[in-house]
Amino acid sequence: MFPLKLRSWSIINLQIEAEESRKMMAFLWIPFFIALHFSSTVEASSCAVNGFPIVRNISEIPQYNYGRHGLSHITVAGSALHGFKEIEVWLQTFAPGARTPIHRHSCEEIFVVLKGSGTFYLASNSHKNYPGSPQEFPIFKNSTFFVPVNDAHQVWNTDEHEDLQVLVVISRPPVKVFIYDDWNMPHTATRLKFPYYWDEACYQTSSTKDEL
Amino acid sequence: MFPLKLRSWSIINLQIEAEESRKMMAFLWIPFFIALHFSSTVEASSCAVNGFPIVRNISEIPQYNYGRHGLSHITVAGSALHGFKEIEVWLQTFAPGARTPIHRHSCEEIFVVLKGSGTFYLASNSHKNYPGSPQEFPIFKNSTFFVPVNDAHQVWNTDEHEDLQVLVVISRPPVKVFIYDDWNMPHTATRLKFPYYWDEACYQTSSTKDEL
Repeated sequence: MFPLKLRSWSIINLQIEAEESRKMMAFLWIPFFIALHFSSTVEASSCAVNGFPIVRNISEIPQYNYGRHGLSHITVAGSALHGFKEIEVWLQTFAPGARTPIHRHSCEEIFVVLKGSGTFYLASNSHKNYPGSPQEFPIFKNSTFFVPVNDAHQVWNTDEHEDLQVLVVISRPPVKVFIYDDWNMPHTATRLKFPYYWDEACYQTSSTKDEL
Repeated sequence: MFPLKLRSWSIINLQIEAEESRKMMAFLWIPFFIALHFSSTVEASSCAVNGFPIVRNISEIPQYNYGRHGLSHITVAGSALHGFKEIEVWLQTFAPGARTPIHRHSCEEIFVVLKGSGTFYLASNSHKNYPGSPQEFPIFKNSTFFVPVNDAHQVWNTDEHEDLQVLVVISRPPVKVFIYDDWNMPHTATRLKFPYYWDEACYQTSSTKDEL
């Protein structure tokens, strides 16, 4: 009897529309890298820790693919961008076939699937020197899934037609990502990517300032 | 020029349907308190730290109003319920007129509005012994807002017709909430509510076990 299950009371139905996103994703790395090249001109306000609005329209927050085909990333609430110290929230959209690298990080991570479906690959690293064959978990609209701290994992839009859109929550920002070439790469051979792509602009702004 | 703003590329459109939620909310406190009364029969698996599925359907996660008229709360990923140590995610729906108490907590908190609109009331506590008149911020579908650590605040569905639905992310779980009767109550006079309503079942399960 407890806990009560009231499915009929509030059937959650999350629906997202990303207009023409897939068509444009392939070309988005061009303006991004142009922008990155000229990042020395970035205004400090782009990465302001203080003074950003209490309420913001997510549709107006900048989004990029960071050179990754089929990705749209929005930092809804960030460490480097907005000064959060303990949590960070992203909105990410994966076109059909798009995926994260195989990677791990030393933080908690929780996903909420807002649209689409796909596959979550997860390998426990508790007993081996490398991830090994991952478990495969179907993920779907209105599902939630999590990544155990330091487990190697990958999110992949394995649907052929529809975008996969997720809200991502992490602890201990900014994220420090260790990237694997494949599931048999030793944990010790992974490459640390820090700052991660969406944090680079703010770090570069800081370093530019230091050089003045 | 940087950061690039690509509004036309992915206009986010979050839509939620909560079927008949408002009609039933007024009566939900009855089964909840009945269930609470019989909580000594709760299975330990209700609050299992280990062994819960990696992927879960949010529609199948239990939801309650915890005696608060017009509220639906779902712990999507919890500390007491699921063993997360650094972050917690809730899905909350407020019927028209429903609101949180005026309260504060010593953690970061980020909201994403999935549906509806309302008002976010926020009072800085940096210069007074009590919150004082809060600032009012309109919140709306597809907006995000945050609560500065320890600032008194209140979320209110001030729309007369539509539900307000939000995803809530907090750090430092489980949440320790200090509740104000009004905006002029001294910070030192607030009541600590711990464990908070949605964490009580797990804590009661533990205490029941201790008595055996």
